[in-house]
This record gives sequence, structure tokens and C-alpha cells, in this order.
Amino acid sequence: LQEHAVTAEQTSNWFDPLFTTDGMRAVFSDRGRLQGMLTFEAALARAEAVEGVIPEPAAAAIASHCRAELFDIQALARGGALAGNSAIPVVRQLIEIVGGSDAEAARYVHWGATSQDAMDTGLVLQLRTAIDLIDADLARLSDALARLAEDYRLTPIAGRTWLQHAAPVTFGLKAAGWLSAVERHRDRIRAARPRVLALQFGGAAGTLDALGDQGLRVAEAMAEDLHLSLPDLPWHAHRDRPAEVATALGLLVGTLGKVARDISLMGQTEVGEVAEPGESGRGGSSAMPHKRNPVRSAVVLAAAVRVPALVSVMLAAMVQDHERGLGGWHAEWETLPEICTLTAGALGQLTRAMADLEVHPERMQQNLGATHGLILAAAAATALARKLGRQPAHDLVERACRRAVDEGRHLREVLADDPQVRTILSEADLDRVFDVGNHLGLAGMFVDRVVANHARE
Amino acid sequence: LQEHAVTAEQTSNWFDPLFTTDGMRAVFSDRGRLQGMLTFEAALARAEAVEGVIPEPAAAAIASHCRAELFDIQALARGGALAGNSAIPVVRQLIEIVGGSDAEAARYVHWGATSQDAMDTGLVLQLRTAIDLIDADLARLSDALARLAEDYRLTPIAGRTWLQHAAPVTFGLKAAGWLSAVERHRDRIRAARPRVLALQFGGAAGTLDALGDQGLRVAEAMAEDLHLSLPDLPWHAHRDRPAEVATALGLLVGTLGKVARDISLMGQTEVGEVAEPGESGRGGSSAMPHKRNPVRSAVVLAAAVRVPALVSVMLAAMVQDHERGLGGWHAEWETLPEICTLTAGALGQLTRAMADLEVHPERMQQNLGATHGLILAAAAATALARKLGRQPAHDLVERACRRAVDEGRHLREVLADDPQVRTILSEADLDRVFDVGNHLGLAGMFVDRVVANHARE
Amino acid sequence: LQEHAVTAEQTSNWFDPLFTTDGMRAVFSDRGRLQGMLTFEAALARAEAVEGVIPEPAAAAIASHCRAELFDIQALARGGALAGNSAIPVVRQLIEIVGGSDAEAARYVHWGATSQDAMDTGLVLQLRTAIDLIDADLARLSDALARLAEDYRLTPIAGRTWLQHAAPVTFGLKAAGWLSAVERHRDRIRAARPRVLALQFGGAAGTLDALGDQGLRVAEAMAEDLHLSLPDLPWHAHRDRPAEVATALGLLVGTLGKVARDISLMGQTEVGEVAEPGESGRGGSSAMPHKRNPVRSAVVLAAAVRVPALVSVMLAAMVQDHERGLGGWHAEWETLPEICTLTAGALGQLTRAMADLEVHPERMQQNLGATHGLILAAAAATALARKLGRQPAHDLVERACRRAVDEGRHLREVLADDPQVRTILSEADLDRVFDVGNHLGLAGMFVDRVVANHARE
Amino acid sequence: LQEHAVTAEQTSNWFDPLFTTDGMRAVFSDRGRLQGMLTFEAALARAEAVEGVIPEPAAAAIASHCRAELFDIQALARGGALAGNSAIPVVRQLIEIVGGSDAEAARYVHWGATSQDAMDTGLVLQLRTAIDLIDADLARLSDALARLAEDYRLTPIAGRTWLQHAAPVTFGLKAAGWLSAVERHRDRIRAARPRVLALQFGGAAGTLDALGDQGLRVAEAMAEDLHLSLPDLPWHAHRDRPAEVATALGLLVGTLGKVARDISLMGQTEVGEVAEPGESGRGGSSAMPHKRNPVRSAVVLAAAVRVPALVSVMLAAMVQDHERGLGGWHAEWETLPEICTLTAGALGQLTRAMADLEVHPERMQQNLGATHGLILAAAAATALARKLGRQPAHDLVERACRRAVDEGRHLREVLADDPQVRTILSEADLDRVFDVGNHLGLAGMFVDRVVANHARE
Repeated sequence: LQEHAVTAEQTSNWFDPLFTTDGMRAVFSDRGRLQGMLTFEAALARAEAVEGVIPEPAAAAIASHCRAELFDIQALARGGALAGNSAIPVVRQLIEIVGGSDAEAARYVHWGATSQDAMDTGLVLQLRTAIDLIDADLARLSDALARLAEDYRLTPIAGRTWLQHAAPVTFGLKAAGWLSAVERHRDRIRAARPRVLALQFGGAAGTLDALGDQGLRVAEAMAEDLHLSLPDLPWHAHRDRPAEVATALGLLVGTLGKVARDISLMGQTEVGEVAEPGESGRGGSSAMPHKRNPVRSAVVLAAAVRVPALVSVMLAAMVQDHERGLGGWHAEWETLPEICTLTAGALGQLTRAMADLEVHPERMQQNLGATHGLILAAAAATALARKLGRQPAHDLVERACRRAVDEGRHLREVLADDPQVRTILSEADLDRVFDVGNHLGLAGMFVDRVVANHARE
Repeated sequence: LQEHAVTAEQTSNWFDPLFTTDGMRAVFSDRGRLQGMLTFEAALARAEAVEGVIPEPAAAAIASHCRAELFDIQALARGGALAGNSAIPVVRQLIEIVGGSDAEAARYVHWGATSQDAMDTGLVLQLRTAIDLIDADLARLSDALARLAEDYRLTPIAGRTWLQHAAPVTFGLKAAGWLSAVERHRDRIRAARPRVLALQFGGAAGTLDALGDQGLRVAEAMAEDLHLSLPDLPWHAHRDRPAEVATALGLLVGTLGKVARDISLMGQTEVGEVAEPGESGRGGSSAMPHKRNPVRSAVVLAAAVRVPALVSVMLAAMVQDHERGLGGWHAEWETLPEICTLTAGALGQLTRAMADLEVHPERMQQNLGATHGLILAAAAATALARKLGRQPAHDLVERACRRAVDEGRHLREVLADDPQVRTILSEADLDRVFDVGNHLGLAGMFVDRVVANHARE
Repeated sequence: LQEHAVTAEQTSNWFDPLFTTDGMRAVFSDRGRLQGMLTFEAALARAEAVEGVIPEPAAAAIASHCRAELFDIQALARGGALAGNSAIPVVRQLIEIVGGSDAEAARYVHWGATSQDAMDTGLVLQLRTAIDLIDADLARLSDALARLAEDYRLTPIAGRTWLQHAAPVTFGLKAAGWLSAVERHRDRIRAARPRVLALQFGGAAGTLDALGDQGLRVAEAMAEDLHLSLPDLPWHAHRDRPAEVATALGLLVGTLGKVARDISLMGQTEVGEVAEPGESGRGGSSAMPHKRNPVRSAVVLAAAVRVPALVSVMLAAMVQDHERGLGGWHAEWETLPEICTLTAGALGQLTRAMADLEVHPERMQQNLGATHGLILAAAAATALARKLGRQPAHDLVERACRRAVDEGRHLREVLADDPQVRTILSEADLDRVFDVGNHLGLAGMFVDRVVANHARE
Repeated sequence: LQEHAVTAEQTSNWFDPLFTTDGMRAVFSDRGRLQGMLTFEAALARAEAVEGVIPEPAAAAIASHCRAELFDIQALARGGALAGNSAIPVVRQLIEIVGGSDAEAARYVHWGATSQDAMDTGLVLQLRTAIDLIDADLARLSDALARLAEDYRLTPIAGRTWLQHAAPVTFGLKAAGWLSAVERHRDRIRAARPRVLALQFGGAAGTLDALGDQGLRVAEAMAEDLHLSLPDLPWHAHRDRPAEVATALGLLVGTLGKVARDISLMGQTEVGEVAEPGESGRGGSSAMPHKRNPVRSAVVLAAAVRVPALVSVMLAAMVQDHERGLGGWHAEWETLPEICTLTAGALGQLTRAMADLEVHPERMQQNLGATHGLILAAAAATALARKLGRQPAHDLVERACRRAVDEGRHLREVLADDPQVRTILSEADLDRVFDVGNHLGLAGMFVDRVVANHARE
């Protein structure tokens, strides 16, 4: 029995290139986290100098050393494990580093602040970059979907409900449905921004006691410096802000998953209406030479399974004790980054899939014909309803459909044989009923409404 | 062995009076669900009459029978189990009922619509009432919290982090923190309203094909009739709207849970700073005569455990196939109502707890003194920091604290014994440091900012 | 605007007939819950009489009134909302009812017990019946799957990975895979039974203090009376037992969802390999007369979205404070019943779907041919691998597949044109490679292994 | 505005030292994952040589290169991102590495297997080591808890329900309750082992077609080689095995969280009954010099918030399509490792906290007295119940308790003033009632039962 050797030194990042983007994992890398805290410390020092709380040269010395590359992250991680939070070792290293060149300045590092001020404001800065990255990719996805909506505005395809053929729609309408949802997510994220991107600064227990009556002015200066909004009071144990980011991304991932489900179903071997763009080596199999697996959809669908549960962690973690939570706060530290990285990965993969989606209108047409007219059953019922009433017409066509299936005939034929139908619908009427092109309803108009909204962005 | 008899006929509603409010369970009762669908059918008929799609008298006859009390809900439930959706049997019963007095009108029932149009629009109508109820209770909770914030604006209490005494705050500041979060939730719910309260009307596959070119005008008339927004296209398989309601309530429940956690911790026997309002019979025990259990907090905390997971269901369920989902849609049917009823219950219980909360400032004072000055350790460090630098001052006081604990002495005494401290702080300085009243920082100012925002509502 | 009337009195049970079974909702009805507690009270009285703690006639009088039909459940629900637990009003009503005929006996009701003893033991009794019901349905499902496995042991069908054709398997092998998983769930549930079905009896704080040194003997007598196992100590705040039921059912529902996903995908219009058994009125549409929606699969898939999150509630709720939790315990009260009812519903629906599944081997055959030989690409590579090495053979066939797709030719033709292939494989070899019947591998043997295990049950 | 620099290259591992153990992160490091797959490939080659499927020297050459340190993990991660699974690039690198010294052997790498065979068997090998690590730590935790149970077998402490004093228990009983639950988890994990630790080996679509009739013998040889159980058939898309590991660990984490909650509540400043073992630098604060935060409890409680949701991912992900899932499978890849690492971290932290827990029996005693006799209200009611009946006695004492609180008197005094009580209880009786030592019930006996079970392990 060969040993299952265990010698490596950190948890796995193997799947990062698959499940997230380079940009987003940089934001939520160790270095990204560190820089967030250091940017807080620099802004704190500058603001305190402006308000005369600490000397100007000390502030300059502190700010100039708030650069992640000067720090030993391994040591920070070990220190954080002991302290139970990540800011304490950062502050200690910063003091050492500043003190190396300016002992006087080192005295003023982290003046009046508490660990969570640095950790939360740092997180908010990470979140701002994260939202920027997501916004940019959402714009790209939106454009790709708008192109599909316009290009296939009136391309008929089987509408499917409960995984069964229902009635004709157009592929452009499907794309417009995706696009419309994506635009709503852009609205939501835009609306959440000012609420969410707020400074955290309260000192030990949230009263800024250490700063006397200068606390609020320092806070104002920091908020301005960091381009963050100034909350009405510190929010250490009120976590609706980070949780709101989680829910906004959770909603987005739900839509991404819906789109990925649609294209992966349309891309099944038997359906063949679309395919993810081909690329050498993408989606192969170690056993089956012919495979071209929809890897991008798989990534999106995996995120759509994982992110909802991670959102629930952020919501459950909101129940935090008193002025700083025990456990709830800690539950956020890896969870919100994971939500961001998975969202970015799913969004990136879907955007690339949709930007160059292979579309096969001829297979759409072929599939529409597969049920020998059944897909136009609703249309036939509508044509009869004026005379018969809606429900009797429905019931008549339902019986005809059953006969068509049992006897392997086209629905039109079966209806044409029905004496009652013949009194209502002429051959020409039946021609009209069974021409898919007559049953796209408002598909084109709906596409136009959505695309016009998109263009307004 | 006595049999565990099983003869009853429906799942349990036993805990409804505990876990939800009468108003909210009416909204999400069988009858509430039915009336939502019927209100859709009535509006559909009226709109189609206005646009000339169906005869005006038929519309009047249909609309006049769209009243839940005319229907047999047991039969609807059985029919729904067969059909797999709840609208089909409703439409059939409506046809029968209308047809009983006007056979011609019965022909036009549900004209051009599909089941999900009725179910979704009905749901949206239920959600509107639900949001109204929650808005009203949020206003009451807000008022109660604002009163607490003002009444105890400068009442000192131990600030606690990691379940340990940290530094003094005021009870008013705690209340202001709660209030500020509640106000943000009111903003979020207000912002979500127009996005969420949208008509669903698309017909079989979302093209309104059965209505020819009158579809959009009928939709506009319905939206106006029902006071709902008109979406840019039908959204049958795009569930970000109901899911957004879920996330907005999930965020709210997180905050409710946080408040309940705080007051339940403050109400522990050893802490005794607050208590839920007393009431005969409330919170008793079958074994322990002295018990007065914090039932309201328990309900809120239970909701804070359950709702996050239910929100994750709504997010996971967004992955719906094509034009109508298989499974995902069905997963919503009981989940979103459950989120609404649990939120209402938690909100109602917490509002009543806070409206008449028993507050014991003398216990707060007493607890502040329990650690013999340790709670002012940060204040002492701040006083020394100017001379020593922040971190050396911190480290000095840390050592003093350890000595105080080990020797069972007051921190002030230990510090007064320290030669280095004596060179920096006079007796009068130490008096100032160890007077809690000097260390409430901006508590009062923060309270004022939050209360002023509240007053602006 | 017609009002959205809200007048009904309890939360919705509309979907019970769709989402659960009659048997299971009886178990978790209000009456089922009540009877569970009463059965505890009766057993308590009997055991205490046996041990001489209370008079024998009192015990007889108490036990004879522990029948749910004597109680006013509405009043119990109202009382429970005030008390915060459901046992207090039950005990009070029981005292009244017993006291109506025997005032002396009434003095001994609930002697030495606490509310949670009654509630938990009652729950355990409900769970026992629930597990019995699930066991019985699992046996039925197992039988149905074993029949499918045997009947279609060597019926070829496309194996599909990543929603793409992979290599041939047999429909019997798919059924055997389902069956094997179901058998493992039966094992798990069987193994959990003795651990889970344990008496709860501890009195006020879990020491049975009120019973002096007779406590353990009373507990032993109760356990024997109720056919429950006797735990080593009371477990009021240790919830791994109910949570284990939740996880066992959660695992089961995962497998039910997997089976439902498979058959719903196989039942898509374009695939058509299986269909849920037809039944008049089942799965219709209010707009589309031809629809026969897979309602049973939808119910199972909905449960597979909901139950995982409900399981997470049970796990999260395990964090209960001290001797009885605040909030965590309450979070279980509706959640575990919901898990049971949803599991039963999903299991029942799937069992009925599989017992009479429509199977279309001719469509399976037809779909196998749809890719012009690509489904045998792995077989072709294997045939070449002996000579070329595994990876070079794989790469050669991969290129051939691409050519076959691009040129719309059969893979066999393309390979036959390849000079390198021709040196290795003769026409007869290619015949063998491209005969699906030669590539079912161990499918039959695997079916036999699983069916033999099943038969052993 | 200083830029929020984003330059780092991988997602964050900063919190690993806090949230997991070195051993477990080695298991689930990139290297651990890789070695798992390589161990599969080596065993495959050996087994195939034994059965004569591939040449013996080729097998030896392959097996000798199946060592993680020979591979370029960055390249594997990039290759996996393209392929969508991690085995494909591993196989390709292995071929190159083997081919570097033995071109003939390279032809037989991965013979007859598919990617998921390597990935799943590799995972199972990782899980085996993970379970071993957890077993070992569970034994340590068990021992620590058994020591506490015995050492404080009869040390009185307030039993608390709903966060309120209830009735006396002993600290040993609390520890026995924790221990009993931990022992049940050990049972569960032990029982799951053979079910879960099963070989995965099925080839392309699970039929082992490429191995002709030698497939089963090769599988048997591999299972023996790897000391894994041989399943009745391959289980690529049936994920109950990995999901069962998740649920077993999820249940365990629930109990760990319950224990952490208890000790963190007992360690609150106002309660002070226990404290996590002190250690220089552990649990400090950057603002408050006196803080000694319960870092270990925080880690455990954070895991108890996160893991339940991660378990729900594993359950939701079980719904996998056909022979290999799209998305569901991928959702597992990082989730199950995360469950294992978080469980290990929580278990390790709690074990260290309990092994050296600071216990303060004098504070327990002091807290028992804090309510002036109320904690013995149940005892008083029991003493009166014989004469008055259980419920009247309860009600009498309830009134007395209210009076005691209102008038700030000891309950004993109030009862002694009650004429009805005086007719029943003498002064000596009241002495007995209000001596905590008389009301520990079966605490000692329960401790003994649990400790005896533990000793049997």
C-alpha cells in the first residue's frame, strides 16, 4: 500500500483558474487583504494629521510604509492565528517597519482605532474593487446578450416548459429574457453601492472615545480620503452591509445559473441548438476522444449550487453579539471573499461563452418540427376558442393531441378530420394555424423593449 | 405499547400563533393564495374587455365571481396535486361558477393567459400586502428603538466584544445601532418595491401569442388596474423578483436576530440589564415555577436560524429551465410564504419586546464595576499613549491588567503603583481616566445622528 | 382596484396533497404532535405507578385520557404561543380533563417531568412512525428499480456525461445505479434507528431531581413501555439525534433528486426515452392542450432543492445554549417535520413514477445512432491503444472525431480512411468496434451484483 | 486616494492557521490532491499488470513515477481550467514523466480508466486520511471531556434554560453531556467508514468496457491494493458517499459548536465560571489592553455557522445528470475539502481549549446564589406537590417567586411566610429544600454511565 503522502503547506488553490478570475483572486489574495488594511492605516494617519491629532511628519512616515510588499504575510497569518484577528499582527509589523526609519512616527500608528476598523474598512475597499470588476464584466455580458437578442430576434425555437415542448418562441426572446434579468442585477448592484461602501471607524467599542471630540472630524476626513460614505455611526456588529453584497451577488449568480442551464440543455447531444465556443483542449475527456464538454456552463452551474449556501452563511452570521461578535464575525472572513471569487468566475465564464456562442438555427427549426404539430396545439385551441369558448376548445385540442400521438399522425391532420373543427376552420385557417411564423406573438416587440432599455445604460 | 395514532388530515399549523402574525398568515393562507389568483383573473377579464378582446358583459360576469369564498379549496388542493399547479383547478372552478349564471361569459375565462400568469401575479399581490404589513411593523419597531436611543442616550453600559467586557458605551448607543440598521432595511425594502411588484402576463410561452397584437395593450391595462409595474417582458423563468423579496427579508431577519441576541444576553440571570416585558403566563415552564423565559427573543432567534436557509432555497431555485422550470419553480411555492410569515412573526415579537422593554440602568452600572477598572484599560492606555506611543502604552497597561487580575486589585491601584505611570499621570489624571462618564466618546452624538435620520422618515 | 382580501385563518396547506403523502402529514399534523406528547404522559404515569412513585389508579386515570381527540387543539396553539412551548398547555388541559373525572389523579399528571421531556419523546414517537413509512416506501421503490434493472439489463442506451453523449451503457445499468444508492440509504436509516429513537426524560434541568433515587428506574420502565432505547443521560440540548434523522433523509432526497433528474432529462421532447406513467388530468396546462408535464419529477426535484437547506437549519440549530437552547430548539419545531413530509412526498411520487415508468427502447436505440459513431470513439481508441499507446490512440481518434463532425460523416468512415488506422484495424475489426452490442462492458454483471444484493434484503 | 493595489496571485490562505490544522490542510493541499490521483494511477497500473492487462515492467515504471514532487502543480491548475477537470493534465504530465525514461511504459498510463476514476479514488484516499486525523483528535477531545466529567462530577452549577437560571446541575454533568454526544459522533464516523471508503473505477461511462472481461478482476486487485472496499458498481454520478462524509462531519461540528457556545457563555465577564487556557498573545485586542478573547471558541462557533451551509451544498449537489453531472460534481470539489478543514480546525481548537480549561467552581457557587433561592423553585414545588398536587404546588411557588422578586427577598423567606406552606413543610424541610447539595438528582449517576461508556472505547 503506497502511502497517501501529506506534506504540502497550504490549502488548495488548484481550482482557482477554473472557478474564478485572475482579477478577483488578486483582490481577495492575502496581499489584497493586507493592502486593504494598510490603506486604512494610511488614511487614518493622514486624517489625524489634518485634524491635528498626530504630527504631520508622523503621518507621512506611516502612510509611506503602508505598502503590502514590505510585509511578511506568513508571519501575519501565524500572528493572526494567535490573536484571533488579522489586524493585530499587521499593526505590530507596521510599527516595526515605520519604527525602522522613524521611531517617533511609530508611536502614532493605528492611533485611536481598533482592529475591526482596519479589517472592515479594508474589506470595504476590497469590495469596491470587486464590484468594479463585476460591473465591467456585467457590461460585457449585457452587450453579448443584446447582440444575441437582436441577431435572433425572430428566429423560431421551441419554447419549453417543464422540459417539454410548449409553444414557439424566438431565440432572440430567450436572449432578451436573460438580458433583462442581467440589467436588473446591474440596477441592484448600483443601488447597493453607496449603502455598502461605508467607512468603518469606531475605536475600541464604537464611541471613538480615544479621539476626544475630534473623532467625527477624523472620520469625515478619512471617508473623503478613501472616497467612502460616512455612516451615521460605526457598524462593527451590524453586518447588513457585507451581507447585502452577498445577497446582491447571490441573486446575480442565480440568473447566471439560469442562463447556463438553458444553454447546457440546448447544447445536449439530442438538441444541438447551441454550443459553447470551441477551443483546442477545452472540455476534453481522458477516456473519450470525441468529447467537447461544456466546461463554462459547468463552472456557472457549480457556482449556482454553492453561492446560495454561502449567502445563507452571511445572513446567519449577522446574529452577532453586542459590540463585536463571537464566531459570527469570523464566519464572514472567508465566506464573503468566496462569494465574490465564485461570482466573478461564473460571470467571466458565462460572458466568454455568450460572446462567441455557436448558434444553430437549423437545429432549432428541426426540433420545432419534431412533434408533428403538437407545439402549435395552443395556437389551434386559440383559433377554435372564439367559437367554442376557451376551455371547450382547449379540451377538444387536448383530445386531438392524444389521438395524434397514439396514431403517429400530424396534429393538423387529426384536426382536419374532426367534423366540429371543419365547421370552424377552413384549410386556409389550418395553414395559418400550423405555420410557426404566425405564432411568435410579441417576441420581436419584447426584444425591442429590452434592447432599448439596454441601450439606455 | 400504546399506538402512536395518526389520523389527522393536514400538516401542522400549531406554531402559527407563536411564529407568525395573524395578518401575515391571512395573506399566505389558502384563501389568500386563491384570492390572489382570482384578482388576476378579474383584472384580466376587465382589461380584455377594455381592449375589446372579450365582451364587456362577460368581463363583468367573470370579475363578479372572482371571490375566494365562492370556491371549494379542498377540491382545488386535490386538483392541484393532479395537475401539478394550482391555477388549473382554479380556472376550472371559475368557469363552472361563472357558467352557472352566464354560460357565454364562461367561455372567456382566463382568455389568452397561462397558469403561471395567474399564480405569479397572485403571488405578487400577496407580496404587496406582505410588504405593507412589514413596513407598518418596521415603523413601529423604529419608533420603539428611537425612544430607547433617546431615553438612554447617555446611560453607561459595558460595551462587550467577543462576549467580554471591552469599554464603556451607552445603552442609547446600542439602541441607535439597532435603529440605524432597521432604517437601512426600510430603505432596501422601499427600493425593491417597484422592481419586485411587477405584473406577470405572457401566455403559454411568454409571447402573448393568443392575443395577437392586442397583447401589450391588455398587459398595460392590467398593470394599471392592479397598480403593478409593467415589466419589459414576461419573467416566468426569471425569478430574481421573488428571490429579491426573499433576500431583503433575509437581511432584515439577520438584524432582528442581532437585536434579539443582544437583549437575550443582556437579560441573562447574571447580567440582568433588560428583560422582555412581563405578562401573565408568558414564558413559564412546566417544571420550574420561577421561570419567565424570553419567548419573544426565542422566536426571533429561531427565525434567524431558519430564514437564511430558506433564502438559499429561493436563490438555488432560480436555476429554472427554459420558459418554465421543472422543480425550481415548485420549490418556491411554500418557501417564499414561509420566509414572509417567519419574518412577520419575528418582527412582531421583537417590536412588542422593544416597545415595553424593561431596562435596569442600575444593573448596567453595577456590571460596569465588576472588573475593577479593567473596562477602562483602553482609556488608561490612551492617556499614556501621548507620552509613550500607542503600542508601548498598550503593552504597559496590558501588563498592569494581568497584575490586577492576578492580585485581585483594582487596575487604578496597580497603575498608581507603577513608577513610569506616576511620571505621566497625576492622581487627578487617574481620577479622570477611571470615571466612566469621561469615556462615552461620541455616543451621544451618534445617537443624535441616527435619531435625526429616523425623524426625517 | 379590487382589494386583495385577507381573511383566512391559517397558513397554507394547499400544496400538501402535491408535496407530501397522507400518511406522513397525519404523523406531523397537529393531532399527531399532540398524540406524541400524550403518549409520553401516559407512559410516564404508568412507569411511575410501576415504580411506586404515583398511585396505580391515578396512573390508569391519566393514561386513559391521553387521547388526542379529547383535546382542543386551537386552544393549545394559543396557549403555546404565550408559553413559548407546546407542552405547557397540553399538561394544563390534561389536568383539567383528568380532573373532570378524578381530581386525585389530576395531581399526578406530568409528575417529575419537564415540557421538553414530553415534546422530545413525542417527537421521537412521531419520527419512529415516519421512519416506518419511509422504510415501507423505500422497499417499494427498491422493488420497482430492481424490476427495471432486470428488465432492461442489456438494453443499450447512450451513456451521457456533462449532458453530452459519452459511451454506451444499458438502461438496466442506470436502474442498477439508482437501486444501489437506494439500498445504501436503507442501510443508513436502519443503522440510525437505535441511536435516534431514544427516550427523552430528565426533568427540569436534566437530573431527574424530582424523582429522588427512583428516576432511573422510572426512565427504564418508560423506555421499555414505549419501545425506545434508554440514553446514557438526558439529551435536551444535544440535538445530534434529531439532526441525524434530518441528514439521513437529506441524503436520501439527494438520490431521489438524482433519479428524477435522470428521468426528466430522458423524458425531454427531443430525447423521449422514458415518460412518467400517464393518467387523465395529470400534468396538463391551462394554456397548452398537448402538455403532459412530468409532475412527479417536478415534486421530487423541488424537494431536492428545499431539503438540503432545511437540513442545514437542523445542523445550525444544534448550537443550543446550556441545558435548553434559546432559539435553536425552536428552529427545529417546524423544520424537522417539513423535512419528513417533503421526503415522504418525493419518495411517494418517485415510487409511483418508477413503478409504471413508460420505457421506449426504440428511442434509446435511435438516440445512440444520432452522432454517427462518435459514441463509440472511446471504443475505437481502445482498439488502437494496444498498438499506439493509450494517449496517441486517444489523440488520433480525437482528430478523427473532429473531422467526422466537420464533414458530416460517420466516424467509422473517417477512421477507415486513415492510413495509420488501416494498418491496425481490419474491416472486421471496425465492424466489431462500431457495434454497440460489443461495448456494454460489465453492464450486465454490475446489474446482477446489485440485484443480488437487493434480493438479500 | 491611494490605490487599492491588486497584484497577488492566488486566493487567500491567510486564515488557514486559525481555521484549520496543519495536518488537514496538508491532506487537502494541491499536493495532497495530486498525490491522491497519482496513488490511484499507480494502483491501477499494478493491478493491470497482475491481471496481465499491461506489461509488468510498464506498471513498475508508471508506479515509480507516481510521486507528487515530480509534477508542476501550477501547470496542472492551468491545464485543469482548460479541460474542466483535474485528472486530464495529471495524466498528460504523468505520460511525459514516465515517457522520459520509458517510452513503452508511457503507452499504458491510465489504461482503461476515466478522469473521474482518478479524481474520486484520489478523493477517497484523502478522505481516509482526513477521517484518521479527525478520529485521533476526537479521542483526545473525549479524554479531555471525560476528565472534566469526573473531576467535577458533583460540583454544583446553575443549570440554565432559555439563558435563564433553571435548577442546579453539576459541571461534571455538563461535561458528561458533551462527552456523550462526542462518543455518538465517533460511532457514526466509524459506521460510515466502510460505506464511504470505496474504490471508484468504471472507465468512460461506468462499464469498464475498455478492459473486456478483466475489468472486475482489475477492480478487485485495486481495491485490495488500496485497502478500499469494492462497490457493487461504479458510482460516478451517485454522490451519497462523499455527501455522507459531509453530513457526519456536519453533525460533529454542530456538537462542537454547542460545547463552544456553553463555554463562551460560561466565560462571559459577568459569569466567569470557565476560561479558555491563557497563553501569551492569545486573544488580545489592538485597542484594549485587558482583553483576553476566547479565540478558540470563536473559531468553533464560526465553523458551526459555516459548515451547515456547506453540507447543504453537498446535498444539493447530489442531483447529478446521467453518468456524470454538469455542475453538481464541480460544486463538490472545493466544498468537501472545506468541510474537512473547517471541522479539523474547530475540533483542534476545542480539544486544546478543553484539555486545559480553566474552571472556577467558586464562581459557579456564587452564581447559584445570585437569585436568592429562585433556582430551587422546582425543588420547592416538588416538596409541596405530594400534598397539593403537581400543578397547584407549581402555581403556589410561581406566585411566591414573583413576590420574592418584587420584594427583593429570598424565596425561602417568602415561602416560610405562606400559611399553606407552613402546614406542609417544617423549617427542617425548608432547610433541605434550599440546600443545593440535595438537588443534584442523578447527576453523579449520569456522569458514571457516560464515563463508563467512554472507558469501553
